[in-house]
Amino acid sequence: MNVARTNEPAYAGGATFAKLPLVLDPGELTGADVAIVGAPVDDAVSYRPGARFGPRAIRLADVSGGAPPSRPHLELGVDPFEVLTVVDHGDAEVVPADKEASHRAIRRAVAGVVEAGCVPIVLGGDHSIAYPDVGAVADRVGADSLGLVHFDAHADDADELYGVRWSHGTPLRRLVEDGSLHGRNIVQVGLRGYWPEPEVFAWAREQGFRWHLQVEVDERGIGPVMDDVVGSMRGLDHVFLSVDIDVCDPAFAPGTGSPEPGGLTARELLTAVRKVALELPLAGMEVVEVSPPYDHADVTALLAQRVVLEALSGMALRKLGREPRPERDGGLV
Amino acid sequence: MNVARTNEPAYAGGATFAKLPLVLDPGELTGADVAIVGAPVDDAVSYRPGARFGPRAIRLADVSGGAPPSRPHLELGVDPFEVLTVVDHGDAEVVPADKEASHRAIRRAVAGVVEAGCVPIVLGGDHSIAYPDVGAVADRVGADSLGLVHFDAHADDADELYGVRWSHGTPLRRLVEDGSLHGRNIVQVGLRGYWPEPEVFAWAREQGFRWHLQVEVDERGIGPVMDDVVGSMRGLDHVFLSVDIDVCDPAFAPGTGSPEPGGLTARELLTAVRKVALELPLAGMEVVEVSPPYDHADVTALLAQRVVLEALSGMALRKLGREPRPERDGGLV
Amino acid sequence: MNVARTNEPAYAGGATFAKLPLVLDPGELTGADVAIVGAPVDDAVSYRPGARFGPRAIRLADVSGGAPPSRPHLELGVDPFEVLTVVDHGDAEVVPADKEASHRAIRRAVAGVVEAGCVPIVLGGDHSIAYPDVGAVADRVGADSLGLVHFDAHADDADELYGVRWSHGTPLRRLVEDGSLHGRNIVQVGLRGYWPEPEVFAWAREQGFRWHLQVEVDERGIGPVMDDVVGSMRGLDHVFLSVDIDVCDPAFAPGTGSPEPGGLTARELLTAVRKVALELPLAGMEVVEVSPPYDHADVTALLAQRVVLEALSGMALRKLGREPRPERDGGLV
Amino acid sequence: MNVARTNEPAYAGGATFAKLPLVLDPGELTGADVAIVGAPVDDAVSYRPGARFGPRAIRLADVSGGAPPSRPHLELGVDPFEVLTVVDHGDAEVVPADKEASHRAIRRAVAGVVEAGCVPIVLGGDHSIAYPDVGAVADRVGADSLGLVHFDAHADDADELYGVRWSHGTPLRRLVEDGSLHGRNIVQVGLRGYWPEPEVFAWAREQGFRWHLQVEVDERGIGPVMDDVVGSMRGLDHVFLSVDIDVCDPAFAPGTGSPEPGGLTARELLTAVRKVALELPLAGMEVVEVSPPYDHADVTALLAQRVVLEALSGMALRKLGREPRPERDGGLV
Amino acid sequence: MNVARTNEPAYAGGATFAKLPLVLDPGELTGADVAIVGAPVDDAVSYRPGARFGPRAIRLADVSGGAPPSRPHLELGVDPFEVLTVVDHGDAEVVPADKEASHRAIRRAVAGVVEAGCVPIVLGGDHSIAYPDVGAVADRVGADSLGLVHFDAHADDADELYGVRWSHGTPLRRLVEDGSLHGRNIVQVGLRGYWPEPEVFAWAREQGFRWHLQVEVDERGIGPVMDDVVGSMRGLDHVFLSVDIDVCDPAFAPGTGSPEPGGLTARELLTAVRKVALELPLAGMEVVEVSPPYDHADVTALLAQRVVLEALSGMALRKLGREPRPERDGGLV
Amino acid sequence: MNVARTNEPAYAGGATFAKLPLVLDPGELTGADVAIVGAPVDDAVSYRPGARFGPRAIRLADVSGGAPPSRPHLELGVDPFEVLTVVDHGDAEVVPADKEASHRAIRRAVAGVVEAGCVPIVLGGDHSIAYPDVGAVADRVGADSLGLVHFDAHADDADELYGVRWSHGTPLRRLVEDGSLHGRNIVQVGLRGYWPEPEVFAWAREQGFRWHLQVEVDERGIGPVMDDVVGSMRGLDHVFLSVDIDVCDPAFAPGTGSPEPGGLTARELLTAVRKVALELPLAGMEVVEVSPPYDHADVTALLAQRVVLEALSGMALRKLGREPRPERDGGLV
Repeated sequence: MNVARTNEPAYAGGATFAKLPLVLDPGELTGADVAIVGAPVDDAVSYRPGARFGPRAIRLADVSGGAPPSRPHLELGVDPFEVLTVVDHGDAEVVPADKEASHRAIRRAVAGVVEAGCVPIVLGGDHSIAYPDVGAVADRVGADSLGLVHFDAHADDADELYGVRWSHGTPLRRLVEDGSLHGRNIVQVGLRGYWPEPEVFAWAREQGFRWHLQVEVDERGIGPVMDDVVGSMRGLDHVFLSVDIDVCDPAFAPGTGSPEPGGLTARELLTAVRKVALELPLAGMEVVEVSPPYDHADVTALLAQRVVLEALSGMALRKLGREPRPERDGGLV
Repeated sequence: MNVARTNEPAYAGGATFAKLPLVLDPGELTGADVAIVGAPVDDAVSYRPGARFGPRAIRLADVSGGAPPSRPHLELGVDPFEVLTVVDHGDAEVVPADKEASHRAIRRAVAGVVEAGCVPIVLGGDHSIAYPDVGAVADRVGADSLGLVHFDAHADDADELYGVRWSHGTPLRRLVEDGSLHGRNIVQVGLRGYWPEPEVFAWAREQGFRWHLQVEVDERGIGPVMDDVVGSMRGLDHVFLSVDIDVCDPAFAPGTGSPEPGGLTARELLTAVRKVALELPLAGMEVVEVSPPYDHADVTALLAQRVVLEALSGMALRKLGREPRPERDGGLV
Repeated sequence: MNVARTNEPAYAGGATFAKLPLVLDPGELTGADVAIVGAPVDDAVSYRPGARFGPRAIRLADVSGGAPPSRPHLELGVDPFEVLTVVDHGDAEVVPADKEASHRAIRRAVAGVVEAGCVPIVLGGDHSIAYPDVGAVADRVGADSLGLVHFDAHADDADELYGVRWSHGTPLRRLVEDGSLHGRNIVQVGLRGYWPEPEVFAWAREQGFRWHLQVEVDERGIGPVMDDVVGSMRGLDHVFLSVDIDVCDPAFAPGTGSPEPGGLTARELLTAVRKVALELPLAGMEVVEVSPPYDHADVTALLAQRVVLEALSGMALRKLGREPRPERDGGLV
Repeated sequence: MNVARTNEPAYAGGATFAKLPLVLDPGELTGADVAIVGAPVDDAVSYRPGARFGPRAIRLADVSGGAPPSRPHLELGVDPFEVLTVVDHGDAEVVPADKEASHRAIRRAVAGVVEAGCVPIVLGGDHSIAYPDVGAVADRVGADSLGLVHFDAHADDADELYGVRWSHGTPLRRLVEDGSLHGRNIVQVGLRGYWPEPEVFAWAREQGFRWHLQVEVDERGIGPVMDDVVGSMRGLDHVFLSVDIDVCDPAFAPGTGSPEPGGLTARELLTAVRKVALELPLAGMEVVEVSPPYDHADVTALLAQRVVLEALSGMALRKLGREPRPERDGGLV
Repeated sequence: MNVARTNEPAYAGGATFAKLPLVLDPGELTGADVAIVGAPVDDAVSYRPGARFGPRAIRLADVSGGAPPSRPHLELGVDPFEVLTVVDHGDAEVVPADKEASHRAIRRAVAGVVEAGCVPIVLGGDHSIAYPDVGAVADRVGADSLGLVHFDAHADDADELYGVRWSHGTPLRRLVEDGSLHGRNIVQVGLRGYWPEPEVFAWAREQGFRWHLQVEVDERGIGPVMDDVVGSMRGLDHVFLSVDIDVCDPAFAPGTGSPEPGGLTARELLTAVRKVALELPLAGMEVVEVSPPYDHADVTALLAQRVVLEALSGMALRKLGREPRPERDGGLV
Repeated sequence: MNVARTNEPAYAGGATFAKLPLVLDPGELTGADVAIVGAPVDDAVSYRPGARFGPRAIRLADVSGGAPPSRPHLELGVDPFEVLTVVDHGDAEVVPADKEASHRAIRRAVAGVVEAGCVPIVLGGDHSIAYPDVGAVADRVGADSLGLVHFDAHADDADELYGVRWSHGTPLRRLVEDGSLHGRNIVQVGLRGYWPEPEVFAWAREQGFRWHLQVEVDERGIGPVMDDVVGSMRGLDHVFLSVDIDVCDPAFAPGTGSPEPGGLTARELLTAVRKVALELPLAGMEVVEVSPPYDHADVTALLAQRVVLEALSGMALRKLGREPRPERDGGLV
């Protein structure tokens, strides 16, 4: 067995997530609940590149040594790998320096996962992959029942960035334009800074987007904000969770392409992701914009890996249909 | 002359703050609202040097690509570069290894800005530059109407450090001594650790300094503390804002010379600076002690750059005399 | 005088903590209140090594320049080096690549400190040293009156890790097994993630361990949790404080061996340690798992150094038997 | 306009090469001998990106503080900035994430320089820019009289890389194909490793390329090899010098995208470049593949900056038409 | 298929070398010429640890993207992956913090490779693995016909290091003691510095070791020294090649545990390794002491990867029994 | 015993060189052959600071673990610590941010060493310390019999740098001016780049300085150049050896303040230093311009430490008055 696809770029391939089984053939995905897909591209960034090394870094950022054996989440009391069948589908067959070909390959890979009945979890890569990622899910479930929960410092719904329409700053615009997503089914958390311009927000308002600026998290706390986020997705049968790691403050996620000071803490993000996965019907997920050349001691990659684990744990508990069972001590003797 | 082409990527072009026009001749500053001045010195530090590279790093730490085009602050709804005319006055004519000459040059540069009717924003450099920075402003407006809001882990009002009187630990003492500042018009935020000694605090108490230890922020929250800070400056016509980046925890600002664990988060600092600039009449500002050799992935420089942007945005909104207009979604459909 | 022991490993020895006097001979420790001991070992780790360089890094991470002169803690109003006699006892005579010999040497060193009537503060080193550290104290005071306050992302009470019984994941199990500690006298703070397995928690519950998951800190706040922690130690005459630096989020402590995103902030940890030292009778302390090869700009080492200083300040104030006297300004004029 | 003050320290001021005047308008280039052009692109790389930050890093990597004042090269006895008029033309108007548009912009910028009668020195950027760089020169002088001296670990004359025809591995193929260069006028130095495949070398052989593998430098020494290189360019009126920094061993140039161990030393490269510039009629030059995110302490950027200075010094001496005059001591007294 | 063994440490497993097929079952190795084995251990080091991450880093340090497709070595004219069947046998089943168990696992893995008729190439790990590596080969071929070519800054034939007999400084002593190697069949290259003591060299002299100090390479050149090295192995049917990456100067290999300034260049080492593999019958090989936490931009890992490729290329050409065919240009037209 | 002087800066003090005895009292130096002195200053640099952390880094960069036990140099066959009595005199009582006071303290410390009859080896610090270092030796032995061997990329004999007379670029000028050194007794090796200007070289020529540009080393080899260097010092009774680590290429010494590509290799420098110490009567030595914030994996500090060890070994062999006795194998059996 060869672990690499033919003519695969050097930065693609390699380890599997959590040392899970590698299932490259989409025909063999059937029966799995979740499939990890790598999307090692950064051709669409406007500032720091490097996210092409993201999938590899996230997969390797695993202190615990992966499964088996696996163990329950201390706070939820559920072992995601016991409840869910999770496999690693390898990396999409991206082409270095050919953004369009890479996007087609990512869409093909995610579509294969979806068609096999698995939930895709895509490891980016820059945020332009939201277009093929969410698009492939939408192709399957349709826009009417599909929601998007989007954690990001940036709204990523501009019409173009430096004149480029297929950019990491525009995927939401493209998805709405082509009917993959309805604006009213999109909710964003963590927006801050000076981008995009008011016209973009005006467009989003027209489309029915909802969003929560970082300042709202500061003032109300992440808990109440997430209650609203979850509430705004009620009634939708399928929710895609898109986590741009730059939603966190650079202290927690230095290894990213467009860092924006003043963001979420790791605790806030992990808690928020867990809640989404637990309370909403996840149909797909992506973690994007991890740029290892700018990381230190793997702190960003470790956080991204934990974001995936939190989501898997939430999904597992949701599947079991029971309450969290945190490890509790016996109380005072 | 503008050193940047329109809509140039952030990583292209050169080194003025936000790619603003470079105006080296003080005679040509007239008409501008704000002038950025670099003070690349670190001859007065007691521990890690490197802040001489601070002005350059802060100027280059610009994810957005600078102006033009510029865009509004998402939470304030104001584009500082549209409301204010901001220019970059280059670096003061510092002399490597001659602290006194450098201080004179910095004072000259800041004085030139002030005389042209602009608000100086000085990028340090170590904190000893507070002496020429604040001094030059005081020369113009007088001590009676001048307040100082000082964010720092260290009080910087010692009489000497290792026997040195012109140190980064002594500028406030020198400013009070020579009548540039009245102690009663000084308020400090974020002090912690083991320095300086009680005699220094006793002196400060006598002078009427007010301060808020970090522990007070922990207990009361940054909001109420900043209400007090702003309140304590009421009635003063001119306020100088001095931000030592080490007021933040080393997680948020590793690239600094005298890191002190247990400090502000980036969110707290950015919120606090915005409030000061919005509610008080800024006559000058400095951001100091960014030491790039100790930074990683530019997180400290990015934070310092955002500190300046927050201040500019606050000043812009204050100039307009209206309330913040955060980008809001349309609410539930 | 030779500052090194004969045949000492390269990474052992060197500077002293806070430039305190070096007292290598245990016979000369008598009269001191506290003795710092280095335990430069990392032979028992399961992921990233490097903690053997921890003691050296923590000792050198001293912005203030050490004592003398020393100065009071701004928030407590006490100078620990004035109230307590603190010395540096150098490093235990560890043997590179011989875990058992190193553990024996550490136990011998800590025992020497305890027998001289000093409180040992051990700088690790990986967490396996809790076995000799706490064990040596227990030998002296007995298990009945000895409590353990344990800050950590990991419970460290597994029976084995990868089949290894003397691991950095098992010291609490070994200590309870050999009667050095009663489970009912142990309280843990900050546990999170996916380790250890439920059987381990079940065993701990049987033994009477108490613990506070990180999620509890998120929900209740560090203050109320620490009130409970201190409360649970009431009635014990001797308390050992074990701080695994990975209890903090990797943003605050990247330089560690088994980073677990979503942890304490530096402010929370420093406040909590101060409270323990102030309100409980410390009989020993350790700060472990600082791994300098993974640190940046010494932020982790600086934090660990401050953890020790906070504890010393708390102990000093407790010795004086008075309230904290924070440096306060004179109020409004 | 000169962006630097006279005798300004290296770490002060902004970002033109050697603090030369910035001349953005091509119409104002006339009269200059040399114009520096930045080409901040890395969209065509197959492994590590980051070269988009190359132009900025090379410009800033200037220990001497730039001109004025400038000083002679110790070994040649000529001050390039005294003999040649050199300006900085800024960066080409590249478009992030649009490779084709960026290439057009680079070609336009280089063409503007050439049309003004200046020698362009282009700071890359990845090696795909050789296509617009050399192409623009060829447009002016014609292929018959134009030679290429190419330092590189990689031959860069493949037909495609991962199926991509406009790649950093293919510019020489494209230039020969479109008639900008004749294969017989190309000579390569430093090739090593496992790329490209024999078919590519067969094609190059057919075209008349000459090359010197790294092993030949090992065996014969850089001096004799460079004699052959210069000899092979005799009779050509215009020579373009293309330096891919990865021709050096990663010890000397870690900050690059496709590092290949076993390459030239900095001494060998600097000597070789000096010889080319001194003995051949340079019509253009590029230094490419400097990737700052992978650099350390700027050693790669510093080397690239010195490569440009060596070339300028060689050109200056050639213009003067005299022998090198190294600074010599007075001999034994 | 699960790519991980059960209960594998986090730092083991992952990518394969050159994206070769992964063949974990020793029974399936038959037919392959070479099998790569990882030995992720660093429990036996005396200074900097980290080599446990070496196998992973070396496997991933592959600029070319691995095979297929593969391409010939430019200087030898042979594609190793076309001539040889090479597979990746994964990592030995090491046990974190249990040196003895790990050594047993490594010996078992190498023995499995040897028994299947393949040449093992072991990626370390610290140099203590020479004991199981060479030992397993000796078990098969016997000491009389087995030679060792050993590149290292350190002789590694001490009787103990800090009293430890199974150390990275002692494997040659253990191998000679237990009859796996005859001292007269050992030749060492690159020794320098201050270790070990004269008694150790006296012992080695008695055993018939031959060695070439670094100073001899300085004076005579690597070529003549390697002629002697190869000459001294003549007549032996099996040669094991042990490359400690610290034989190179820290400029070329900073990522190592016991760096010793003044060593080989990458060019010297690569040339020397190629010669050994081409002219001697390799029965096994190891590359050790790559410590990724101390590496920068992967330069050390890249060098180690190229050391393996050079050896494979040499072996391939030896198998073909023909002369090197470097890619040559067509000469002057 | 307190290991720190009172009010010592944080970056001073700490470990001792090679774990040698610490002898702070100059009165107790008598009887020692050599005393190590730290000069932690960088107030006189013109580009990158950080050398204040040099003495500490050099002392700690000791792979071997220091003495005792010590061992012979493999190439010389002499154990410097057996032949010479070497002690560590700690750091001069420098004052942060007071260049003049620091220089006085360094001169005092070196003078104390010289007066005790020991050879001082000073660990810098920036190169301005050559003034107090050499000056203190000259005070003792007089200029007529004192020579200077100076390894450096820069001539350091300018009259001023940016107008500053006490700079790291001017110490030789000051020493000649005040009669401490005669120009005819100075020889320099490794000069390259673009500094200083011809007038400075003209002055040096008048004074009788001799120098060897780097290009001469390239062309003639380090051996013949060093023969000339040693020859030019014949007849002098006392030679001071000044090694600026930037004489090496940045590949070997990235951690320095004014890196100049194209310099010596570590092998060349170590060999050259050994020769000087062996063949000339060393009266003092300094290793300067090691700047740890710019170092990686301690490669620069390790090199500087080895420079000192090479000198000590050479001095030891000279004291014994015998030939080098390299460890030799027994030859072919």
